[in-house]
Amino acid sequence: MDRKEISNLLHSLKGGQIEIDEVLERLKHLPFEDIGCATIDHHRSLRQGFPEVILGQGKTVAQIEEIMAAMIDKASNVLVTRLEKRKAARIRQGFPLSFYHGDARCLTLEQKPVEVTGKGTVLVVSAGTSDIPVAAEAIVTARMMGNEVQHLYDVGVAGIHRLLARRELLLAASVIIVVAGMEGALPSVVAGLVARPVIGVPTSVGYGASFGGIAPLLGMLNSCAAGVTVVNIDNGFGAAYAASLINRE
Amino acid sequence: MDRKEISNLLHSLKGGQIEIDEVLERLKHLPFEDIGCATIDHHRSLRQGFPEVILGQGKTVAQIEEIMAAMIDKASNVLVTRLEKRKAARIRQGFPLSFYHGDARCLTLEQKPVEVTGKGTVLVVSAGTSDIPVAAEAIVTARMMGNEVQHLYDVGVAGIHRLLARRELLLAASVIIVVAGMEGALPSVVAGLVARPVIGVPTSVGYGASFGGIAPLLGMLNSCAAGVTVVNIDNGFGAAYAASLINRE
Amino acid sequence: MDRKEISNLLHSLKGGQIEIDEVLERLKHLPFEDIGCATIDHHRSLRQGFPEVILGQGKTVAQIEEIMAAMIDKASNVLVTRLEKRKAARIRQGFPLSFYHGDARCLTLEQKPVEVTGKGTVLVVSAGTSDIPVAAEAIVTARMMGNEVQHLYDVGVAGIHRLLARRELLLAASVIIVVAGMEGALPSVVAGLVARPVIGVPTSVGYGASFGGIAPLLGMLNSCAAGVTVVNIDNGFGAAYAASLINRE
Amino acid sequence: MDRKEISNLLHSLKGGQIEIDEVLERLKHLPFEDIGCATIDHHRSLRQGFPEVILGQGKTVAQIEEIMAAMIDKASNVLVTRLEKRKAARIRQGFPLSFYHGDARCLTLEQKPVEVTGKGTVLVVSAGTSDIPVAAEAIVTARMMGNEVQHLYDVGVAGIHRLLARRELLLAASVIIVVAGMEGALPSVVAGLVARPVIGVPTSVGYGASFGGIAPLLGMLNSCAAGVTVVNIDNGFGAAYAASLINRE
Amino acid sequence: MDRKEISNLLHSLKGGQIEIDEVLERLKHLPFEDIGCATIDHHRSLRQGFPEVILGQGKTVAQIEEIMAAMIDKASNVLVTRLEKRKAARIRQGFPLSFYHGDARCLTLEQKPVEVTGKGTVLVVSAGTSDIPVAAEAIVTARMMGNEVQHLYDVGVAGIHRLLARRELLLAASVIIVVAGMEGALPSVVAGLVARPVIGVPTSVGYGASFGGIAPLLGMLNSCAAGVTVVNIDNGFGAAYAASLINRE
Amino acid sequence: MDRKEISNLLHSLKGGQIEIDEVLERLKHLPFEDIGCATIDHHRSLRQGFPEVILGQGKTVAQIEEIMAAMIDKASNVLVTRLEKRKAARIRQGFPLSFYHGDARCLTLEQKPVEVTGKGTVLVVSAGTSDIPVAAEAIVTARMMGNEVQHLYDVGVAGIHRLLARRELLLAASVIIVVAGMEGALPSVVAGLVARPVIGVPTSVGYGASFGGIAPLLGMLNSCAAGVTVVNIDNGFGAAYAASLINRE
Amino acid sequence: MDRKEISNLLHSLKGGQIEIDEVLERLKHLPFEDIGCATIDHHRSLRQGFPEVILGQGKTVAQIEEIMAAMIDKASNVLVTRLEKRKAARIRQGFPLSFYHGDARCLTLEQKPVEVTGKGTVLVVSAGTSDIPVAAEAIVTARMMGNEVQHLYDVGVAGIHRLLARRELLLAASVIIVVAGMEGALPSVVAGLVARPVIGVPTSVGYGASFGGIAPLLGMLNSCAAGVTVVNIDNGFGAAYAASLINRE
Amino acid sequence: MDRKEISNLLHSLKGGQIEIDEVLERLKHLPFEDIGCATIDHHRSLRQGFPEVILGQGKTVAQIEEIMAAMIDKASNVLVTRLEKRKAARIRQGFPLSFYHGDARCLTLEQKPVEVTGKGTVLVVSAGTSDIPVAAEAIVTARMMGNEVQHLYDVGVAGIHRLLARRELLLAASVIIVVAGMEGALPSVVAGLVARPVIGVPTSVGYGASFGGIAPLLGMLNSCAAGVTVVNIDNGFGAAYAASLINRE
Repeated sequence: MDRKEISNLLHSLKGGQIEIDEVLERLKHLPFEDIGCATIDHHRSLRQGFPEVILGQGKTVAQIEEIMAAMIDKASNVLVTRLEKRKAARIRQGFPLSFYHGDARCLTLEQKPVEVTGKGTVLVVSAGTSDIPVAAEAIVTARMMGNEVQHLYDVGVAGIHRLLARRELLLAASVIIVVAGMEGALPSVVAGLVARPVIGVPTSVGYGASFGGIAPLLGMLNSCAAGVTVVNIDNGFGAAYAASLINRE
Repeated sequence: MDRKEISNLLHSLKGGQIEIDEVLERLKHLPFEDIGCATIDHHRSLRQGFPEVILGQGKTVAQIEEIMAAMIDKASNVLVTRLEKRKAARIRQGFPLSFYHGDARCLTLEQKPVEVTGKGTVLVVSAGTSDIPVAAEAIVTARMMGNEVQHLYDVGVAGIHRLLARRELLLAASVIIVVAGMEGALPSVVAGLVARPVIGVPTSVGYGASFGGIAPLLGMLNSCAAGVTVVNIDNGFGAAYAASLINRE
Repeated sequence: MDRKEISNLLHSLKGGQIEIDEVLERLKHLPFEDIGCATIDHHRSLRQGFPEVILGQGKTVAQIEEIMAAMIDKASNVLVTRLEKRKAARIRQGFPLSFYHGDARCLTLEQKPVEVTGKGTVLVVSAGTSDIPVAAEAIVTARMMGNEVQHLYDVGVAGIHRLLARRELLLAASVIIVVAGMEGALPSVVAGLVARPVIGVPTSVGYGASFGGIAPLLGMLNSCAAGVTVVNIDNGFGAAYAASLINRE
Repeated sequence: MDRKEISNLLHSLKGGQIEIDEVLERLKHLPFEDIGCATIDHHRSLRQGFPEVILGQGKTVAQIEEIMAAMIDKASNVLVTRLEKRKAARIRQGFPLSFYHGDARCLTLEQKPVEVTGKGTVLVVSAGTSDIPVAAEAIVTARMMGNEVQHLYDVGVAGIHRLLARRELLLAASVIIVVAGMEGALPSVVAGLVARPVIGVPTSVGYGASFGGIAPLLGMLNSCAAGVTVVNIDNGFGAAYAASLINRE
Repeated sequence: MDRKEISNLLHSLKGGQIEIDEVLERLKHLPFEDIGCATIDHHRSLRQGFPEVILGQGKTVAQIEEIMAAMIDKASNVLVTRLEKRKAARIRQGFPLSFYHGDARCLTLEQKPVEVTGKGTVLVVSAGTSDIPVAAEAIVTARMMGNEVQHLYDVGVAGIHRLLARRELLLAASVIIVVAGMEGALPSVVAGLVARPVIGVPTSVGYGASFGGIAPLLGMLNSCAAGVTVVNIDNGFGAAYAASLINRE
Repeated sequence: MDRKEISNLLHSLKGGQIEIDEVLERLKHLPFEDIGCATIDHHRSLRQGFPEVILGQGKTVAQIEEIMAAMIDKASNVLVTRLEKRKAARIRQGFPLSFYHGDARCLTLEQKPVEVTGKGTVLVVSAGTSDIPVAAEAIVTARMMGNEVQHLYDVGVAGIHRLLARRELLLAASVIIVVAGMEGALPSVVAGLVARPVIGVPTSVGYGASFGGIAPLLGMLNSCAAGVTVVNIDNGFGAAYAASLINRE
Repeated sequence: MDRKEISNLLHSLKGGQIEIDEVLERLKHLPFEDIGCATIDHHRSLRQGFPEVILGQGKTVAQIEEIMAAMIDKASNVLVTRLEKRKAARIRQGFPLSFYHGDARCLTLEQKPVEVTGKGTVLVVSAGTSDIPVAAEAIVTARMMGNEVQHLYDVGVAGIHRLLARRELLLAASVIIVVAGMEGALPSVVAGLVARPVIGVPTSVGYGASFGGIAPLLGMLNSCAAGVTVVNIDNGFGAAYAASLINRE
Repeated sequence: MDRKEISNLLHSLKGGQIEIDEVLERLKHLPFEDIGCATIDHHRSLRQGFPEVILGQGKTVAQIEEIMAAMIDKASNVLVTRLEKRKAARIRQGFPLSFYHGDARCLTLEQKPVEVTGKGTVLVVSAGTSDIPVAAEAIVTARMMGNEVQHLYDVGVAGIHRLLARRELLLAASVIIVVAGMEGALPSVVAGLVARPVIGVPTSVGYGASFGGIAPLLGMLNSCAAGVTVVNIDNGFGAAYAASLINRE
């Protein structure tokens, strides 16, 4: 296509409809349009069900509103993550069709229904009650990105039978996101039970020598079960994003 | 199937071909065979091209030889990782069909040809010359697990054009493993260019404030590009294992 | 008893068999003998099956031999921990009755048979093959301290069914020592299965973000299963010592 | 027993009172009931005096109330730990028989009197005034779990005579929990004085290079006195739980 | 000059206009005046366009006002950094000519127009929206120190084409300050593109394993691109100060 | 003396004025009285000008008041450190003779004038304005402990001439306390200039890679100038206490 | 120029000397040639006196020789850093004109005399004798990059007069590289004395709480003197490279 | 004196025996001679019994020999610390009067008998056998610096009575150096027993979570006993140097 565009340009030049200087001028930015191509391709694939995403943290309400407005013009669905309740309330006044997911601290705006494009199910597993907010962020994200999503809560390794009792769910999933704080051992156990890609999300839940999530982060990085990859502490969004890419393959 | 097996057992009991005590004895291990089921299933999927794997580090030559012998009996292919040259030489005397990949520090033994079962290509990208051993471990592993593998070496972010010049390779891959030391920025750049799952492998290459790989590990965990997941420092095997699971989906 | 000893002293004084100066001289060390009382009591309980212990690390062969000689004079059994093979060979020349446990890096010398004084069984569980040396140190120590000891090797959480299949062993133990590297999750799973005191021993086995055992140490400290206490990295001896105290109660 | 239950099932099958499909259906969940067995056994032992426990931290008032209501239905005693005063006040409105221990930040609800099932005394020792909240959590927990509890406050190592003067208390205890911040040296001194299991609890009290409790945590892990095991920073509950298991043996 | 001053003193002595004691007294402080000389020279160069600088953090409003008053007496321009909005409002009441830069958290007071003394342009590049406050501090500082300043915002490495599209700006700069959080990879990419001194400023923006800016700090220190130097986390001022010194050379 | 006391006791026994049982009873507590002796001796030396000290942090107003009341009964002077302004105000209502040093966050109560018992001068040097609170704590403490105290503020190493200009003060001191944040280099420079004991106090002042005082703490521990010893971050009290002990020798 | 090249291409097309397909083919790689442009420009500026650089660490002798051979073909000067003596000896056999700087662990090969292109002097200052290897690496690098270089050794802050005595040297430099281990305070003092860009290089010299150079690294990042930027621990090369860029401006 | 020297100079000028230019020339270096003065004074006090000191670590035999030769010319005593046995043997060949202290890894050369100039006794206390090398370095250093030295070995806090039994020694000391690894609690206990300056030296002895001495370092910094100051890990020399300065006061 790009090749075609350039080809057209050259034909115009050869045909005399355009001057060399103009061609030069237009070629000047070509490389980046071309690289942009990759990016556009990237965006295109995103647009096939992937929403535009705004990291709410560290942005003012005004900044978020401005970006949202620009996105809506392109008819995109929008996902705002890490958005405090207070900010969300103000934003929803200007975007009444948006919806705030309190547990996930996410705001979504669906201009068109999310089309399910993922091939299988993304399963979100969490170890304890306090890991639920991070799990919820993963769920909202995965849904907005066109995946069937299921979840399994409160199945920590200290009561391993709770997990074993639900292994049908594990076996049925295409990708499994495992959210855990404390010692972060759940991804190892899950990856030992099923031959599926497992993405571990350490959470900052805990106290003392948890060190804000370092304990489960190290636990997951040192998993004795092959097949586990890891994202940043509390990064439910990142896990769901990677899971969506996997579920597309 | 398992159900079928038990069903048969019960029919035999009802039919009088078998005694209650024998049923009890065989059922005694059922729960674990059943759980083992998941494991067997897991193993089965592994056996569909996945080799048996031995972590060579921390094991004696005698231990490795014993495990290899047991595996060979089951006609499996075998992959031994993190194996020192010196140990490999001794092992190869007993297993003359095995092959030692010096750069990857891996020994492989193929009793049957590796069947390509992965749907797409696994691409292994590395930033610098010194990251090659870890990249090589990933390549050997991915090949042994039934994937088409390609690689792209020495495309660090300080000369970004080297990477951009090969973006066709990036776009053609199903999963991309990115191996990098130093600041570990390459996965971010790659994930920004293509909409594919990217698995980052930080390496312990570097000095000073690299802290044996902590710098690139943190860099990858904090990647500004969504879609990047991370494995342990120098864990080329783990990255390739996860990539293989993804490539099967 | 001590009171009795002093009482006798005072009676001798009153009866004129001993001078005030001599009493003073003997009383001079009394306070510490008295405090020593606690210590003697401590030693007494130790002597009821507990061997004298020497930390071999950081001591020369000559130092160890000198201490051993003094202990043997008191007819004690002796346990030397963290002793390199090379040093052990030299020591055994002078103490031919001693025995070197190569896997545990311990030397033992039994002048009298170890009497079993522990009430129940100490079970030593380990996650992987490379954790065995630390587990072996715990086993040798617990045996020398008068406990029935059993062990369960290679039951890491990535293949959870291996552990579940042996739960009779877990249920039969009085105290369980769990040795694990990697993510250190095994103590949590064990403590979730049985209502017994579980002592976790993180090992320095692993690489990369294991950081010489920090990962499993943090994992165990943050265990989601109540009832787990932890000792220093690789401290099989300390775990067995604590288990012995518990098994006496 | 389980074996018996299955045996009965098989006899019924053989005797024709039950169909194969029904047996299959009931066997389907057997593994987990069986594993659940271990868990039930675990719960049973807990119920023999052990209360149900809720970690208050990170849960809403509504969540806690819901869990408490379910527990009360089973006639259990309840212990809620790490509960802020403000939340406790609201909960107590719905559960007027509950009691809030302000210093320990625990809420207890005793539907039946706690039966003393521990064989000996659990002694809680603390180093400084600011360690008392953590010590208090340990005391409330140990009491709720059926132990005789005694405590010894403000006996830090800088005034070692204060501790020595109370060694009778130390000698009389079955298990000793030692709570200390600063350099965390008290467990070493206590374990040097008596031959009892000592559980160290580092506290986050202190400033500067205490690093929120890392200093005493490392101090306790590196204790020069054998017999010391350690729990997470500020984890008075965990120490008391482990002490209760030990006191049962 | 100093030499001249002393020479005059000595001539006065030789000429009898002054006593030896007075000379001694005046020479007494000479060393420090002399060393002060270096400092004065330093100050002089500063005064050639460099403002007086006050670190607002950790100072009371009263302290800042007092220092500002003293500086104004010397007709200096003044820059107060890390000043909270609330404090700034109070200070501006007393110094109505001062101006508060909210995004940069800096207050400036220009008694005389800032003279551009830098030879080239200082370019401030930032990776994400949340890095802007630190970038703004660098911009305000560099302007107050007599530099032409340009900036380039939101050109993070995950969308590398955004940066490439502006490489004319990069090539036109004399010194480039690159502000980035997350993995801190932007300085490496920039330094790979242009042969200019690049000063990296890691920011504390991010969460989880960013650890308050450690991740980008390590990333920049381990930059695979030569020519990158680094300042403290969030230290936009320090980067601009160093850039100003470089731009003077 | 102690010996004499026991000797008297024994003479009384021999002389028949006292019974063996009574001697036994009195000897029973001897060790601790004796150890207490050391403590009493310790206290005595403290009372020679040293005030009683209460660490205010982590104590309630009621607790502090109770301890103060007990101390006042013994006619001691009192020093309360790390006391918030709000708490101090409430305490001063009950102890109107007490005085609150706002900058040092200390409350002092002098029942008798502090007698100067130190042999020389304690000099407190601080690097920057924000280090003053810690320096002030050291000054108040040293004064209350009977020392002549002088101070030198704002002489950081970036303007080394400021320090050199006051070297008479440095040379005149018996002990020098150096308070510094940032890179913590001032103690090295001071110890290089004078042959006096230098006690470094790192402060938590700073931001970014200061890590709450770790940077200056490490700086001082690694001082290239012999003669520097270090106390905890922000521990002005501890430095002054140690300086007082030195100034007594 | 690139523009000119494309212009020629287009003229040829318009003039009919070349076909559209050929133009397309040649334009296909244009973007990267164009980006390469920046790189080429970068290389060009490097070639104006800058040698080609090989990081010797982590490369085999064969790899280094291969790269050197390729560089020599382009008539470049070559600098190999972090090269062990043993490897250097072998390389010098193949490249007899190369020279090995033992103290700096660098090998240089000058095919043409290094032209001095830097405008001023680069001064390398080091604190202690053990910092000299890192300083030497900086000196060799700076010389190879076309700078006049001077050095000042053994002027640590514990004997501040040694530094003050040479301030003429400091004042005469364009850029100052300060190499220091221990507390890393020397850059602060130097930057306080002169208004020049100062680049700090922390070294891994030291022991204990130096932590392999973390102490001086943190010290330099927290420098109280503005104008200090920092490179990685032991990175003498990086400092000299940045200094060379500055000295060109 | 310096004043006198300058005064003489000025009198010569006034008296015409000398020219202004010559005075200027001689005054030119005055400042530094003057600062040197402080240093000379420092050296002078050192020379009153203090030896010249060379840090052997990181220096070649040739470098050490050269420095020693220069020192011997000034008739100084010499102390070389951290010197490996192998290097010492070679040095002793050239300096046959020198003596190598193997346990302390120090070489001493006494040209004149060390004069005892310290007022009291420096007591060196160590916790365990493996801490002895560091203690020995402190002892050799303190002796060479003119102090009466005594030591007390193997009195760790796990057997507190061993320390209490020697409290006369503690009470008799002027300054106490306490060397300890593990949890580093010994300085706290010692400082609680006697009112003397206590200098803690953490050692790198230990394993696992000792982290090369971080555990005892933090323990000592957080000592609950006032009066403890700390030096770097394993820095026996630094502790003895500081103790010598204190013992002079």
